[in-house]
Formats: sequence, structure tokens, C-alpha cells
Amino acid sequence: MRPDDLIMVSVDDHLVEPPDMFENAPAKYRDQMPKVVRKDDGADVWVFNGAEIPNIGLNAVAGRPKEEYGIEPTAFDEMRPGCWDVAERVKDMDAGGVLGSMCFPSFPGFSARLFAAADDKDMALAVLRSYNDWHVDEWCGSAPGRFIPMGLPVLWDAELAAAEVRRLAEKGVHSLTFTENPYTLGFPSFHSDHWDPLWTALTDTETVLSIHLGSSGQLAFTAPDAPMDVLITLQPMNICTAAADLLWSRIPKQFPDLKIALSEGGTGWIPYFLDRIDRTYDMHHLWTGQDFGDLMPSDVFRRHFLTCFISDPVGVQMRDLIGIDNISWECDYPHSDSSWPFAPEELAEVSVDVSDEDLDKISYQNAMRWYSYDPFAHLPKEEATVGALRAKAAGHDVEIRSYDKGRFEINRQGVDLGTITRKATA
Amino acid sequence: MRPDDLIMVSVDDHLVEPPDMFENAPAKYRDQMPKVVRKDDGADVWVFNGAEIPNIGLNAVAGRPKEEYGIEPTAFDEMRPGCWDVAERVKDMDAGGVLGSMCFPSFPGFSARLFAAADDKDMALAVLRSYNDWHVDEWCGSAPGRFIPMGLPVLWDAELAAAEVRRLAEKGVHSLTFTENPYTLGFPSFHSDHWDPLWTALTDTETVLSIHLGSSGQLAFTAPDAPMDVLITLQPMNICTAAADLLWSRIPKQFPDLKIALSEGGTGWIPYFLDRIDRTYDMHHLWTGQDFGDLMPSDVFRRHFLTCFISDPVGVQMRDLIGIDNISWECDYPHSDSSWPFAPEELAEVSVDVSDEDLDKISYQNAMRWYSYDPFAHLPKEEATVGALRAKAAGHDVEIRSYDKGRFEINRQGVDLGTITRKATA
Repeated sequence: MRPDDLIMVSVDDHLVEPPDMFENAPAKYRDQMPKVVRKDDGADVWVFNGAEIPNIGLNAVAGRPKEEYGIEPTAFDEMRPGCWDVAERVKDMDAGGVLGSMCFPSFPGFSARLFAAADDKDMALAVLRSYNDWHVDEWCGSAPGRFIPMGLPVLWDAELAAAEVRRLAEKGVHSLTFTENPYTLGFPSFHSDHWDPLWTALTDTETVLSIHLGSSGQLAFTAPDAPMDVLITLQPMNICTAAADLLWSRIPKQFPDLKIALSEGGTGWIPYFLDRIDRTYDMHHLWTGQDFGDLMPSDVFRRHFLTCFISDPVGVQMRDLIGIDNISWECDYPHSDSSWPFAPEELAEVSVDVSDEDLDKISYQNAMRWYSYDPFAHLPKEEATVGALRAKAAGHDVEIRSYDKGRFEINRQGVDLGTITRKATA
Repeated sequence: MRPDDLIMVSVDDHLVEPPDMFENAPAKYRDQMPKVVRKDDGADVWVFNGAEIPNIGLNAVAGRPKEEYGIEPTAFDEMRPGCWDVAERVKDMDAGGVLGSMCFPSFPGFSARLFAAADDKDMALAVLRSYNDWHVDEWCGSAPGRFIPMGLPVLWDAELAAAEVRRLAEKGVHSLTFTENPYTLGFPSFHSDHWDPLWTALTDTETVLSIHLGSSGQLAFTAPDAPMDVLITLQPMNICTAAADLLWSRIPKQFPDLKIALSEGGTGWIPYFLDRIDRTYDMHHLWTGQDFGDLMPSDVFRRHFLTCFISDPVGVQMRDLIGIDNISWECDYPHSDSSWPFAPEELAEVSVDVSDEDLDKISYQNAMRWYSYDPFAHLPKEEATVGALRAKAAGHDVEIRSYDKGRFEINRQGVDLGTITRKATA
């Protein structure tokens, strides 16, 4: 398929929360809502619950030269506006040929653990609901049909978490961001029955548990002097830990309708993983006691898990071993792994041998089905292609440039600073 | 290829150390050598340096029914004799069609960390050398051409480690077992120059650094209540952590001739890993400072790493993306993942579409080249095939039976004991 003819829905992008997002928060908690404070050195930080959170836009480097990919933006003017301004985001999506996008949070953490850490749980719940309302009504609401809405979880209370899922479902939300491993965040594990009210609410409302890599609070650490490349290489591979933990947990047996997405998890490792779980079952279930009835673990995996990739020639080649109905494309805007604005060309390149039918499933149809998302209720299909969106965005500036204002932090670990070329401000 | 026509050399098996192995140790340290003590309950334990090591044959379950795979043998008579008796081992190899075998240690740990923990380092060195001499002279020496000899490393001193590698090379040894991560065992990491004398000795003597999965001292732990299946699934996948750590370390740049084997690491994940490291390099090397000159990281991987599999249909299918010269078969006798004595049939089954040329590389030629191993100096090729070896072993008993003497420990983690069927003693 030609890049222009693709329809592209991304199941994993990121938004940087804008400073004014809590303006509509309940009056009672207005003063306790997270707020952005500009420091004397020009840096912007979120302040909440007595703490300063400096990573306002972790790895939000879209539009920058690669030499700056290791540099963390510390203020809004060090980021491309599309990171945090939804009108600009939609223009960037148009220019990148992206019809639809699901946006994970930034400063609260992927599973909103920042809010879970507050002592005043009533206040924390008000903040979280305010965030979710803003996400649905303001961010997604400003461009109907262009976003897959997603809720933050009430991590500290499974009943409240279930109630929030049901409240959000009434607003059309079918995705909940969650952690790879609640145990490592200090909560009961996937093997406990603690979360059953949440799993029940998710299945009742056809809401997908969207698990983003890096959400366990644990990094793929090898040694303190290991270069950053080790971490970058391993980070996406470690979501297989969550996949194994969930697959062998009680969830597939007790909640056969629960859908799970392994966000930013890649796909090339899945065929090996499926072979591994089937072999593990064959060799060991007689003493471990696992029982999937007539199914093999690989069947169970395909019933429950959506996988996705940014650019993964191996996964595309092995799509039949993964399951063509279990693969989605993602953009990962505005992080450094993203190929925005050239994702359509990259996807077309790795898919030259893929039938249009298979490619349509990967690029948008699986995302629509899993997330109960229908962009065509708002936009005719012929206006949703890469070519049509890009034509609409003609003139929108996507030039690569430095956003360095001189207050960057180097996101380094064992990296020789001398190898970093600092660019003059554009 | 028909199973009978295969020639099979296994680059990963395990020996259980027999009680009499230190009989030829230096007189000075005779009393301090590890020794086997039989407990009142009939269990056998190794005693060394004031400690009792109960896992004499970790997971040595060959020949048992699958219901007993989760049960740890605690005495020599609870194991198939081929685990610890080399004459019986060779018969088991014949019956399984296995020409050659490289045997990792059991009670000292994969990188002999037990010996490294002793306060008296002179004594520890004497023990380690005595072990290595026994391994080469007695275990391998009893059946010339049937084993790839392997040394244990002097983990606590890089200069002594280098000297031992050179000493062993004089005895024909071209393999050194080592840890996935020295840092997690309390030693300097792969990123330090601490190990340079060892790397130099390995390259000088064409000795392969054989890194067995599970040798980092860290398990793939998710939660205390996670079922054992999670650990079993993830254990072989986690060697990619070591692969990434080594690939991005100074070793490939400073020691371009060093050869590394990822023992029991599987192969199906390698194509994805190679794509991932190349993409990481492309996206990030401008700020991380990695520099491989004219090579891509995947080229560097193929220059340094031998991979292997027990049964891996995905890896076999993707062999061209891995590198046909970088793949070896392994048997993993006597552990539960092994398909002994039916490995030839299993390998033939996953290789139906593989050319004889490729299959010969996988089943024995790559192992011979990497480990400077030449079985045909001792045995004509026509007597080395699966069919010829099995004919020789006609009548050798390979029947599956219970070795349960009633003192087993259940190797459990979150497993319902009620699901374990204990068998009557055979």
C-alpha cells in the first residue's frame, strides 16, 4: 500500500499536561490541585502534595535533532507545542498522517501513582477525576473522532477504581491506563483477588486495561556504570515480564472477557514468547497446576492481549505467528522512539509484502475494534487517509529544530558528556 | 534430514558432581575440599567452607515423569545415574543420539560463586583448580571426544582468572563458564576495565566466555504470590539483559576477538533484539556516544555471540535473521527443559524446511568451530550419527520412572501443593 492510502490510528502516544488543565476542578480542592510553577532559572515544574515534579515532559523530544534526544525538556518552551497544546497536536497528527491517537499521561506517571501517594485520598480522588474529565472533555473533546479517550486508575482503592471506570464508560471511555506490576508499586499483585471489582468493571464496560512499558516503577538496570543504550534497548523487551505475569495469573481464568493492551511493547518477541508459554505449559502444568481447559496458553494470549509496534519488521514478518487480529501500529509521539512525521513511510516500508487486508487491521481496524473507537462517525473515510490529512495540514511547520533554551538536563547514565553536541537556540 | 542421520553436539548440559571428585586434590587442602555428607533423613548435601549446600542436583529430573518436574532431588539415589556418573552419562548420550556435550557445574553455581565466597582464597583457588582438573581429566577424559571441556572462573581475581584460563588452555580447554552479570554478584561490571586481563587471556587462547542464563544471582521475580510458571517462562528470556549489557559495553570495542555464548538463552527473540539494537543505535548514538565504526550493532552481535536453543521453531524459521553461523543446538540434560532422549526427533521436526547444510551447522558444525572441538579425531563421522550412537546403546534403559525416595523438596512458589501427585517409589 502507498503511504498516502494508509489509515493510521496510534494506540500509544503521550500528552504533556498543559498548565491550565485543572481550571475547572471542584472549588473545594482548587488550591490543592497540581499547578505549574516557573522557577528562577526558567524551568517549569508541577507542584502537588508538597512535592516538585520536574519531569513535565519526560522524553518529549519530537521535532528535535537526534543529538538532543538525550536531553530532557524542563520547560514548556523547550518542547514542540504539539506536546501539550491539543490544537497544535491535531495539526501535528495531520502532518504525520495520523487519524487517531490514544494519549498516555506524563507528570502523574503511567498509572497515576503520583496521585495515589497523596495522604488526603478524597483530595486525590478529586484531582484524578478532574484529570480524567479534562482528558475526555477538553483534550479529546476538542477534536471529536481524533482521540481514543483513556482514564487514569484509582490505584489505591479497587472499588473506587471500578466506580471511576464505570463513570468514564458513561462518557465513552474504553481504555484505562494501568501499571505493569501493581506489586512493585506497593499494591497487591495480579495474583491477588484484591482487584476483582476493577476487572469486573472493565469487562462490564468493555474497557481495555492498557499497560504501558516502564510502568512498574522498575527499570531494566544492569549496573550503575552501564551506558544508557543498555536501558534503551531493554526497556521495551521487559514488558514480556508483565505479559507472563498476567497470562499465568488468575485473570484469564476468572475474567475471560478482560482485554489487555501491551502498550509500546513491540511485537517481534511475541512468536518466541508464545512458543515458550506453550512449551512451559506442556512440560510443567502437571505439577504447577495450571489449567486452561481446551486451550493452549498461546490461545489464551490471543484472546486477551493486543500488541503494538512503532516500527518492527520482525513482528510484521511473523504476524501470522502473533495473530493478525492482535497487532496494532503506534506512533509514540512525542517520544524519541517515534518516527513522526514519517511514520506512514516507515510502516509502508516494513509492510511491502503485507496484504492490504492485513495492513488495514494493523494500521487502524484492530485499534478501532479493541477500543470501541469509531472515527468515521466524525470524519468520512476518504478524509481520514494519510494523503487527505497531510493535504489538510499543508504549510504546517514540521521542520526539525533545536528547542534548547539552555536549561536542559542531560538524561545520562555513563555517557561521556563530551559526545553531546549542544545546539544553539533556534 | 532423518533423525538417524543427524550429528548432534550439545553446547549446554549439566553435570551433578559425584562425591569422590576431590579425591585427587592437593594434600595440603584435602580436609577443606567440599565433601558430600549424608544426613539422618537420607538426604545428601555438599559441605564446604562451613556451609551446607542442599541443591546437589538442581532440577536434575531427566528420566522422570512430568508430574515430578517440580520436585528437587536431595540425594544421589533420587537422580538418574547419568546425572553424576560419567560412564552412565555417555550411555545416556548414546541412547539420546548425542555425540558431544558441554557440561556446566551444579553445586558451585554457574560461575563458581560458592568458591569465591570462601575467606581463604588460597584454599579456594586450590578447590577451583582441583574441580577444573577433575572436570577435564576425569569427566571429559574418561570418554575422549565426547565432551567439550569447560573451566570454572576465578571470580575474585581477574589476574588469577586469566592465569587459570591459560593453564586450562594448555590442557585443551576452550570454554569458561561465567556470570550474566558480575555486578549483581558483587564484582565490577562488564563496563569496568577490571576484567581486561581475563578478556585478554580468553582471546589469546581462543576460549569462549560461556554465559548461562540464571547466573546473575537474580531471578525474574514479579511478586511473591506469582505462580512458578511465570519464573519458568521468563528465565530464558532474561538472558537478553546480559546480551544488551555486553553488546554496549567496552568489550566489543576493546576485544573484537572475544567470543561469547549465550547458553540456554534460546534464539527466537534474537531477530527482534537485533532490530532493536540497530534502531537504538540509529536513533540514539549521536547523544550516547556509541561508535561501532563501519558496523551496525547487529554485525557486532554476530561477530561475538553464539546463541543456542533446545527446541525453538521460531528461531529455526528466522535463522537467516539471526545468522546461520551463530546458532547451535543444545540438549540441557538432565534438566526439565530437556527433550532427552527424543531430542533428535524434536530437532528434525522443527527443521523440516531447513537445508542439510544449515542443519549441520546448527546441530554440530557451529559448536565445533566456536569451541575448537573436534570429536572426529576420536570417532569416525559415520559412527557419530544419531543412528550409529543409538545402535551402540541398544538395550540401555531409558524408561521414564519415578526416582522418588520420599525426601523430595517441592520446588514451589505459589503452587497449590494439592495439585502435585506424589508417585510411589519405583
